[in-house]
Amino acid sequence: MSHAFVPDGGVTTPLGFEAGGTYAGIKKFGDPGDRKDVGLLVARRSCVATALFTTNRVCGAPVTVSRDHLADRRARAIVVNSGCSNVAMGARGIEDARAMARAAAEHLGLQEREVLVASTGVIARPLPLDRVRQGIQAIKPSVEGGLAFSQAILTTDRVIKRRAVRFEVGGRTYTVGGTAKGSGMAHPNMATVLCFLTTDAPVGADWAAFTLKHVADRSLNMLNIDLDTSTSDSLFWLASGEAGGDPIVEGHPAARPLHDAVHALCEELTRELARDGEGARTLIQVEVLGARSDADARKAAHTIVSSPLVKTMVTGRDPNIGRILMAAGRSGAELSTERISVSVNGVLGYADGSFAAQNEAALRKSMDAAEVHICVDLGMLGTNQAVAWGCDLTTDYVHINADYTT
Amino acid sequence: MSHAFVPDGGVTTPLGFEAGGTYAGIKKFGDPGDRKDVGLLVARRSCVATALFTTNRVCGAPVTVSRDHLADRRARAIVVNSGCSNVAMGARGIEDARAMARAAAEHLGLQEREVLVASTGVIARPLPLDRVRQGIQAIKPSVEGGLAFSQAILTTDRVIKRRAVRFEVGGRTYTVGGTAKGSGMAHPNMATVLCFLTTDAPVGADWAAFTLKHVADRSLNMLNIDLDTSTSDSLFWLASGEAGGDPIVEGHPAARPLHDAVHALCEELTRELARDGEGARTLIQVEVLGARSDADARKAAHTIVSSPLVKTMVTGRDPNIGRILMAAGRSGAELSTERISVSVNGVLGYADGSFAAQNEAALRKSMDAAEVHICVDLGMLGTNQAVAWGCDLTTDYVHINADYTT
Repeated sequence: MSHAFVPDGGVTTPLGFEAGGTYAGIKKFGDPGDRKDVGLLVARRSCVATALFTTNRVCGAPVTVSRDHLADRRARAIVVNSGCSNVAMGARGIEDARAMARAAAEHLGLQEREVLVASTGVIARPLPLDRVRQGIQAIKPSVEGGLAFSQAILTTDRVIKRRAVRFEVGGRTYTVGGTAKGSGMAHPNMATVLCFLTTDAPVGADWAAFTLKHVADRSLNMLNIDLDTSTSDSLFWLASGEAGGDPIVEGHPAARPLHDAVHALCEELTRELARDGEGARTLIQVEVLGARSDADARKAAHTIVSSPLVKTMVTGRDPNIGRILMAAGRSGAELSTERISVSVNGVLGYADGSFAAQNEAALRKSMDAAEVHICVDLGMLGTNQAVAWGCDLTTDYVHINADYTT
Repeated sequence: MSHAFVPDGGVTTPLGFEAGGTYAGIKKFGDPGDRKDVGLLVARRSCVATALFTTNRVCGAPVTVSRDHLADRRARAIVVNSGCSNVAMGARGIEDARAMARAAAEHLGLQEREVLVASTGVIARPLPLDRVRQGIQAIKPSVEGGLAFSQAILTTDRVIKRRAVRFEVGGRTYTVGGTAKGSGMAHPNMATVLCFLTTDAPVGADWAAFTLKHVADRSLNMLNIDLDTSTSDSLFWLASGEAGGDPIVEGHPAARPLHDAVHALCEELTRELARDGEGARTLIQVEVLGARSDADARKAAHTIVSSPLVKTMVTGRDPNIGRILMAAGRSGAELSTERISVSVNGVLGYADGSFAAQNEAALRKSMDAAEVHICVDLGMLGTNQAVAWGCDLTTDYVHINADYTT
């Protein structure tokens, strides 16, 4: 690994980006001192831009508008609000998302089409456009404003998630920055994931799109807090090119290091999101080995990490290995019931067709930790593997989503 | 509907069946007065037998053995235990399940292959075979023993689930009986579903297999308590033929009434299972209309009823219609965002591309009920529809599955 994390890094750590955030009265809950609900991220020059969006058939108006604005694969700015997701609002929703982009464009002296939009919060409620506009006008983007931007995207998240990674190739320094939000409750709502990445590396648009998908499939797309795919999920990546040099495409000496840096950043943000899942007290990491195919490995890892009974087994610190076998079995992945093995935090729990009863006390002890790592070898003698991240299911999850009303 | 439920009916209400249950010390929890953990169901003569089993790739040894014993599509008896599922025990598990069938066969004077086996409880622990044998020997099956059999299959279930349905065709009376168990915790474990059906109707084996699958796909297979498919799920149907007459196959005047009776029985048991889901306080019924295909309707209903955020919205009595739209959207079913409509307990919540804000108070009031019925028209102008059943997610679910250790 040739890259290193930058202390206190975020979206404005790469050259050429400024950001800011403010409170415009959209969110109703939270500590007034910290709360912000409108954010702006802007690049000094036009960026190569790529993005991935929710696969939910009910998708937010901001997703539709951003997709449209990305047709030329370029962007200069992103405007975001939390507290209202502008989803399922029909034609009005699209108009409001466009108006939000336009307000940001006017404030920043850009074209409407250069601005991407993201919103998170309650579904099927109208966007308070006047407040969003006031918020936008109150923001003076700066390099220092990266933190405020990271705050503005939060809903029920307990911690800010931001990181930056730096590496050198051929005497040139490149930086990748990012921030993300997870589960939300401004109005109690859904595990909406928004993620914003920046880099000062110059990138080819095709290569960037391919790389972002490849990395997302191995990081954010392997996160599961509560099975509910948000209508607003969005992952954006803006590349300013201010680090200089030729555009990075396949074969460029910086291609692999940049891919790895983006991957490290996204994996780190994914772990932060899992750790801060609604009501979570424990990060669960599930590694699946020995699968017949990549799809099988991913399917098994996903199913195990999202199983309510595996989650509650972690909540209760109970080494009930049978639940892990059950989840692997229902995933649809091919497995050998004779060769499958399971370990928890390094202690073997099941192998050779039987429960490792002699390890029961050690298994229980191993689970008394802030992270529970489950490793399952499906026994199909394949080399395919996958990792997924999630969190335990606690009574706080139920309280957060049941006791607070819209 | 030509059929009627029989008061206090169960598996021994149809002619030709006897049953019993006893406590053999396999389960460790529960009220000693009521608890039973070994059950026997036996027919006076050889029955046409059909069954459906879990699709989990890790399946219980009893499932493997029962499948084997059903090769000739006939059976005389079923032996069942709760407290240990005999799953993931390798070759020993198969031997133990066979030994359990053999012990029942010896006790009842039958061949081993005439006996089907079902076990429910903790996974990856050895079956206490001596206790199972003692239990079997202590049971004297009788018509009155149907209730004891229904008790013997329970784990964390709070209520016994048993029903019988009777109808007449051409001057002949036919009866269908059934019992089922849901979520379990003898050792805290999984939403294992076992269901046993009997009838005195004579049936063709092909017709019975087709009918059972058709009914299960519209009842038990539309139940979702917590997403975790058990390794032991089994649905058995024994037909004694003691009501007399020709075997019922397609075209027989009793075919449709018998299908409807089995459907009514299974739907009723499914509703009971949902109502008694682990920690449940509310039954949720989701009806999906206007789908482009049957598969789309089923997918959408299943996804909505199993969504953690829909479940907690019901727990909190919060008419957060956005969550229902989100779940419909992530189901993969085709839908029209313009035409989709949602109602809750008969009150319209979303239509014509917007939230029915004027109904918010009425929606909230409507949810203050023991059952929450959600109706979603996907707006695809199709005639396909489906119904799914589930329950709310409460802190009790977390306690049941986290706080008690194996």
